[in-house]
Amino acid sequence: MQSIKDLIIQNNNQEWFKKLRIGLEKESQRVTLAGELAATDHPKTLGARKYHPNIQTDFSETQVELITPVFENEHDVVSYLGALHEVVLRSMKQEEMLWPLSMPPILPEKDEDIIIAKLEKFEDVLYRRYLAKSYGKRKQMVSGIHYNFEFNKQFIEKLFEEQSEYQTLSQFKTALYLKVSRNYLRYRWLITYLFGAAPISEAGYFSEDEEKPDEPVRSIRNSKFGYTNHDDVFVSYETLERYEQDIADLIEQGKLSEEKEFYSPVRLRGGKTMADLKNAGIQYIEIRNIDNNPFAPYGITEDQVEFLHIFLMYMLWLDNRTDNADELLKVGTQLNNEVALENPLNMTNYLTEGLGVIAGMRQMLDEINASANWYYLVDKAEELLNDTRKTIAAQMLTMFEEEQLTQHEFAVVYAKEYYDKAWEKIYQLEGFRDMELSTQIMIFDSLQRGVEVEVIDRSDQFIKLTFNGKVEYVKNANMTSKDNYVVPLMMANKIVTKKVLNEAGFRVPLGYEFQSLERARLIYPEIAKTGFVVKPKSTNYGLGISIFKEGASQEDYEEALAIAFKEDTDVLVEEFLPGTEYRFFVIDGKTQGVMLRVPANVMGDGQSTVEELVKKKNQDPLRGTHHRSPLELIQLGEIERLMLKEQGLTIHSILEEGQVAYLRENSNVSTGGDSIDMTDEISSHYKTIAEQAVLSLGAVICGIDLIIPDKEVNPFESKNAYGIIEANFNPAMHMHCFPYQGKGRRLTQNVLDLLYPESKVI
Amino acid sequence: MQSIKDLIIQNNNQEWFKKLRIGLEKESQRVTLAGELAATDHPKTLGARKYHPNIQTDFSETQVELITPVFENEHDVVSYLGALHEVVLRSMKQEEMLWPLSMPPILPEKDEDIIIAKLEKFEDVLYRRYLAKSYGKRKQMVSGIHYNFEFNKQFIEKLFEEQSEYQTLSQFKTALYLKVSRNYLRYRWLITYLFGAAPISEAGYFSEDEEKPDEPVRSIRNSKFGYTNHDDVFVSYETLERYEQDIADLIEQGKLSEEKEFYSPVRLRGGKTMADLKNAGIQYIEIRNIDNNPFAPYGITEDQVEFLHIFLMYMLWLDNRTDNADELLKVGTQLNNEVALENPLNMTNYLTEGLGVIAGMRQMLDEINASANWYYLVDKAEELLNDTRKTIAAQMLTMFEEEQLTQHEFAVVYAKEYYDKAWEKIYQLEGFRDMELSTQIMIFDSLQRGVEVEVIDRSDQFIKLTFNGKVEYVKNANMTSKDNYVVPLMMANKIVTKKVLNEAGFRVPLGYEFQSLERARLIYPEIAKTGFVVKPKSTNYGLGISIFKEGASQEDYEEALAIAFKEDTDVLVEEFLPGTEYRFFVIDGKTQGVMLRVPANVMGDGQSTVEELVKKKNQDPLRGTHHRSPLELIQLGEIERLMLKEQGLTIHSILEEGQVAYLRENSNVSTGGDSIDMTDEISSHYKTIAEQAVLSLGAVICGIDLIIPDKEVNPFESKNAYGIIEANFNPAMHMHCFPYQGKGRRLTQNVLDLLYPESKVI
Repeated sequence: MQSIKDLIIQNNNQEWFKKLRIGLEKESQRVTLAGELAATDHPKTLGARKYHPNIQTDFSETQVELITPVFENEHDVVSYLGALHEVVLRSMKQEEMLWPLSMPPILPEKDEDIIIAKLEKFEDVLYRRYLAKSYGKRKQMVSGIHYNFEFNKQFIEKLFEEQSEYQTLSQFKTALYLKVSRNYLRYRWLITYLFGAAPISEAGYFSEDEEKPDEPVRSIRNSKFGYTNHDDVFVSYETLERYEQDIADLIEQGKLSEEKEFYSPVRLRGGKTMADLKNAGIQYIEIRNIDNNPFAPYGITEDQVEFLHIFLMYMLWLDNRTDNADELLKVGTQLNNEVALENPLNMTNYLTEGLGVIAGMRQMLDEINASANWYYLVDKAEELLNDTRKTIAAQMLTMFEEEQLTQHEFAVVYAKEYYDKAWEKIYQLEGFRDMELSTQIMIFDSLQRGVEVEVIDRSDQFIKLTFNGKVEYVKNANMTSKDNYVVPLMMANKIVTKKVLNEAGFRVPLGYEFQSLERARLIYPEIAKTGFVVKPKSTNYGLGISIFKEGASQEDYEEALAIAFKEDTDVLVEEFLPGTEYRFFVIDGKTQGVMLRVPANVMGDGQSTVEELVKKKNQDPLRGTHHRSPLELIQLGEIERLMLKEQGLTIHSILEEGQVAYLRENSNVSTGGDSIDMTDEISSHYKTIAEQAVLSLGAVICGIDLIIPDKEVNPFESKNAYGIIEANFNPAMHMHCFPYQGKGRRLTQNVLDLLYPESKVI
Repeated sequence: MQSIKDLIIQNNNQEWFKKLRIGLEKESQRVTLAGELAATDHPKTLGARKYHPNIQTDFSETQVELITPVFENEHDVVSYLGALHEVVLRSMKQEEMLWPLSMPPILPEKDEDIIIAKLEKFEDVLYRRYLAKSYGKRKQMVSGIHYNFEFNKQFIEKLFEEQSEYQTLSQFKTALYLKVSRNYLRYRWLITYLFGAAPISEAGYFSEDEEKPDEPVRSIRNSKFGYTNHDDVFVSYETLERYEQDIADLIEQGKLSEEKEFYSPVRLRGGKTMADLKNAGIQYIEIRNIDNNPFAPYGITEDQVEFLHIFLMYMLWLDNRTDNADELLKVGTQLNNEVALENPLNMTNYLTEGLGVIAGMRQMLDEINASANWYYLVDKAEELLNDTRKTIAAQMLTMFEEEQLTQHEFAVVYAKEYYDKAWEKIYQLEGFRDMELSTQIMIFDSLQRGVEVEVIDRSDQFIKLTFNGKVEYVKNANMTSKDNYVVPLMMANKIVTKKVLNEAGFRVPLGYEFQSLERARLIYPEIAKTGFVVKPKSTNYGLGISIFKEGASQEDYEEALAIAFKEDTDVLVEEFLPGTEYRFFVIDGKTQGVMLRVPANVMGDGQSTVEELVKKKNQDPLRGTHHRSPLELIQLGEIERLMLKEQGLTIHSILEEGQVAYLRENSNVSTGGDSIDMTDEISSHYKTIAEQAVLSLGAVICGIDLIIPDKEVNPFESKNAYGIIEANFNPAMHMHCFPYQGKGRRLTQNVLDLLYPESKVI
C-alpha cells in the first residue's frame, strides 16, 4: 500500500482526514438503589424492543443497551448518549439506577435468577440461551462500550483518486480499514492501559474452580478472562476474503454459532449483516474494547472519544509491513492480555513502545495542523503512560483505598450521583439544553418510545423524526405536517381569525379595523355605553392597548385611539369581553389541556417583604429563564415596581398572611405568571366549543383562548357564556407539561401519537 | 307602526341605522366594436353557467348578467362590479364590447336572430321561450341594474327590542321592509327622474303597429312601455300575506307563469325562493328600476349607489298612513309613469313633492349626524330637480345634439372607452389594484371560472375562495391548504433545505455553518483551491456575500468572513456552483414555468445615452413599481451608477449598437431585472429534477432555483450538471404570467386547478 501519510500531505487532504463519523453503543446493568441487580422487567414506557432504535436490552433483561445514531463530531455523540441515559433513567422505576462499571454487580447466587432478555423473537432468546451455555451467564453480564468509526467518505474518495494501487473504491476502502484494524489490534494494549476500568470482579463472578486473574488488574474484561471467544477461535485480518472465510469456517466447525459471536476488539462492518460486508466491502469498523468509565456520567468522556479518534487516525497514518498480518495480530493480542492483567498501580512493561506511539501521534498532529485540544489529549496520554496512578483503573483503586470503599460501594456512590443528576431537572434533557423546553420534552418522549430523532437546526428548533421508515419534520414541537400551511397564516392575522370564527357561529369580540383616527372617531356613539377595547392591530405585548370595561367618554375614546395609532397604522376597536381567560390546547380534535394563567404574584406570610417573597417563590426548580424552564423567574423591574405602586406597595412592603400582591397586569408565563392546569375542572361543554372552533379554523394543533365569565354556566344553554379572543399556531407546550399547580399534561406525547399512532405506548 | 324615527333617535341607534348590506346585479348586451349585437356564444372561458355565481346570461345569449356578492359598503360593491366588468370584457372575443345602455342596440330584423340564452337546464330555456312569446323578444333585451338592499341585522334587532308593537323579530322585520317598499313604490318617480337613462329606442325596437312613447322621454324602460307586466297584474304590498296571495292568485289565473315573472320595481326577498319568503319573512328587498348609466363605466356610480342608500333609509324614516297601502302604490305607479314619459329637458310636474322629499332627507341627515358626503349627494339631487338638464337622460340628449351623435354612435363611443380601459393594464384588476399583482391575477382567474372570491384581509393578501360549497383560503396566491405547515418552515431555513435535499440525493452547494470566525478560519485548507461563497446565514439581498469562483488567499478568505460576520452571527461557507440560475415553478408535481432572470440592463442603439435607454425601456407598460406590475422600473440610483462605473460607464455614456450595459449585479425582477420565460427551452430532464426535488421537500407549490452550467447537457448522464441553490415557499407568480420575453404562464390557473380540479375550464 502506498504511504497514506504521503497521499494526505501531498494532496492537502488534512482537513478531510480530520473528519469522522461515529456512533456509540453502551451497555449497563439496571440495579436497585442499593446496587443489587434489578429483578424488574425492562421499562414498558420504552416501547417495544422489536423496533426501538436507541434503547435495547443485550444479554439479560437487566442489561440496557444504548445505541446512538451516527454523528460527525465527538460532542454530539456524547451528548446524545447522555440524552439516552437520562431517558432510560427517567423511564425506569424511581428505585432503580444504572451500574456504572463494566464488571457486573454482585450477581444472584443461582444462575436461573439471571434473567435472559425477554425478547419477542424466539431466535433471539435461543441465541442468548446458547451463549449462557457456551460462556456461562455471568460472563455475558459484563458491559462495555462499542465505538463505531468511519472516516469521511469524501476523504476516502479523494485518497482513492490520488492513489494508483487499487482499481475500485471499494477495494481501496477495504484495504484502508483493514490496515487501521490490524494496527489497532497490534497497539490496542495502549487503550487498555489508558482506559481499562475493570480491575476487580465481585464475589461469585468467577466460579470456585475456574482459573482467574490475580486481581487487581487493569481490565478483566479485556484480558483472556474477559469477554473473549474460546482459544481455538482465530480470524485473520490480512484480507477481507480471509476474514470472511475464517469466520465461515469457524461457524462450519461449530466453534462459533454465528458471526456476531465473534468477540473481536475490532469487527469489520459492511452494513447490518455479514452479507453486506461481502457485497459492499468494509464501510466502517466497530471498536469493542472500551470499558465503562465509572468517572464519566455516561460511561465515556468526550475526551476519550476524541483521543480514540486521533488514535484511529494514527492507525491509518502509521506505515508498516503488511506481509505479517497474522503475526502482528497475535503479538497484539498477547501484549494486550499482558497489559490488561498488569496491576494498575504498576508501570506497564511496554512503556517504551507506548511512548513511541505517542511520539508518532504527535508528529502526525504537527503535519496536519491539529488543534490545541488534540495536542492536549496526546500530552495527557503520555502523562498517564509515565504516571500509571493517573489511569482510570488506578484511580479507582486509589479511591477504594482512600475512601475506604469496596468496589460495590464505590459503584453505588457514582451510580447515585448520575441518578440524582438525571432526576434533578426532569423537564430538561441532557445534550439538548440549548433548545427550547417544548422541543427538549418532545425529544425526550421520542427517544423514549423509539422514534429516531435528528436535530436539523438547533437554533431553529427543527427536528427530524423517523419511525418505521416514516419521516416527519417538527419545528417548535408544535409545528408539523399535520397542519396545512394556510391555517397558521390565518391564525397569525387576528382579523382573519375572527372573521372565520364569526362566520362559523362562534362568539368573538366584534369590532372594526381603522387606518385613520378620523374614521375611528365616527363610531363613538355606537360603543359609548358598551365595554370596548382599543388596540393596535399587530402588537402583542399590551403596548398601546386601552380597555374600557363599561364604556367611555368621547374624550377618553379619542385619547385611546391616539395612543393606539402611535403603535400601528391599523387600529382595532373591539367589544370588551369580561371574564377569565383560559387556554385550551387542542390536538387532533381533542382538548388535551386547559390552562389558567395568573399574572406574576406573591402571597404574604405576615412577615416577609415582597422582595423576599419573590426570592422565595423563585427558588422553585420549575422557574428559570429564557424558556428553558416551565416557569420564568419573577422579575422586580420597573414594570413590577409600578404595578406594586398602583396597589400602594413597594418591594419592601410586608404582606399580611394570605394577602396577594400582583407584579404584572398581563398573565403571560413568560413574565413570571403562574400556570394552573384546569383540564379536569373545566366542563366538557367548553372543551367541545374549543374543539369545534379549532376545527372550523381547520387547525390540528392549536392553542385557543376563551374568555369565560362563569365556568359553571352551560354555554349551550346560555348566551354570551364565552368569547374566543385568540387562536395561537405556536402555543407553548412546556407550561402544560409542568404547570405551577395542577396535573401535568404531556402534550408532546399527544403530538407524537398524532404523527405516529403506531408508536403509541399504552 | 311606531315612529321608526323616534326609535332610532331615542335609543341612539343612528350608527347602526347607517349600515347596509348591498349586492348589485347588472345586465348588458354584448356587441361588436361597431355596436351590433354579437352573434357569438357566451365566452367559454367563463366556465359553466350552471354554477357560475357572478357571471350569467339573462334572456338572450348576448345578455350578460353580472352579480356581485353582498357587501357592507358602497365602495366595495362598485369595485367588485368593476372587477366583474373587466373579467367579462377580457373573457370575450377581443372584437366585442358591452353595450352601455339599458335600451338595446339596433336588434336583428328577424326575431329568430335574437338568440335565447343557451342554458343547460331545459326548463330555463322553456321559460325564456314563454317570455319571448308573452312580451316579445325585443322587450326582453332591455337591461338594467338591480339593487339588493338590507339594513344591518343588529340594527333591526335593536329596534325590535325597543319597540312594543310586534311579537316576533320576523314580524317586525317584515313590517319594516314592507314600509320601505311601499314608500319606495310611492316615491320612486324621483329615482326615475334623477337616474332615468333610457330616452330613445333604436329603430325596430317597437313594432310598427305598437303604441309607443313620444320620444325622447326620461326612461322608456321605467314607463308603461318598458319592462313591466301586463296591466292586469296588481300585487298588494299591504301585508306579506296579501303580497304572497296576490302573486299566487295571478299564477293560478295564468297571468304570471311564476313568481319571478313579477316585474315589480321592488321585489320582496326572503331568500332564494318564494317559499323562503313565507318561512323566514322578508330578509331584504330588491330594487329593480335603475337604468344603466352610460356615463358610469360599470353602469352605476358609487354616488348613485350611496344616494339610493340614503333614499331607502328615508323610506324607512318617513312616517305616514298605513291604511291606504294599495292606493299609495297606484299613485306611485302613476306618478312614476308620468315622470318616466316626461321630456328630459322639461321640468318635472312633481317638483314640489320632490323638493319636499329632499327637505325630509336633509332633516334626517341632521338627526343622524350624517357625513358631509351624504349632504353633498342630497344637495346634488336637489340641484337636478331644479335644473333638469343635469339629469342623466337630459345629459345624454344634450350630448347627442352638441356632438352630433346618434344614440347608437354615442353608445359606441362610451362602450369603446370602457373597453379600452379594460384592456389597458391586462395584468391588473379593477377594484383590487391595491393588492399584490399575483393576488389580482388569481382573483381574476377565480371570477372568470366561477370561483367565488371574498377578500378577507386586503393588506395581507388573504382571500377566501368558494366553489361548490368548498372553501379554500389563499394568501399571496401561492400559500394554500395543499402545502403542509412544516414544509415552508423548512424552506425558510437554508440549512434545513440543503440537508433534506442532500439526503435525498440532490446536488446542493455543500458547506459549513459557523458561529465564530475562529472556527471558520480553520477550514481554509479545505477550500483554498475550490470555488466558494462566504455569506451570512439569514440575509437575502446580497449584503455581506463574497464569491470566490476559483479559490482565494487566506487573507481574502478571512476578510470575507469578517464582512459576513458583520451581517449575522451565523455565517455559511459554501461550495460555489458556476452556471446560470433558473427558477422552476413546480405546482402539484409538475413544472409549470421555467424562468431566467437577467439583471437590470439596457442595450445600446449607437446614439442614446444609458439614461435615455433606461427611460425608453421603462416605458414598457409591464414595468411599474411596488409589485403592482410584472416588471419593475429600472432605477438610476447609487447602486446602478456604481455598477456602470465598474464597466467604465456613466449614465451619460452612449452605448454602441448592441452593447449591453448592466445596471445591477443581482438578477431580481424587483430591482429592474428582465424575466425571460424558458419553459419550452429547458429539457424535461431538468424539469424532472426540479419536480423530484420539490417532492422530496414535500412541497406542493414551490419555486426552486437550479444552477445549470449548460442546459444542453443531460443531467442524468453527466455529473455536476446542476445544483439546487434555493427553494422558495413564496415564489413570485406574476413574472411568469407576464414575462418580459417569452410566453406567459398562467400559474394562478394551475393553483386554481389544484384547489378545485372540478372548476377547471378546458
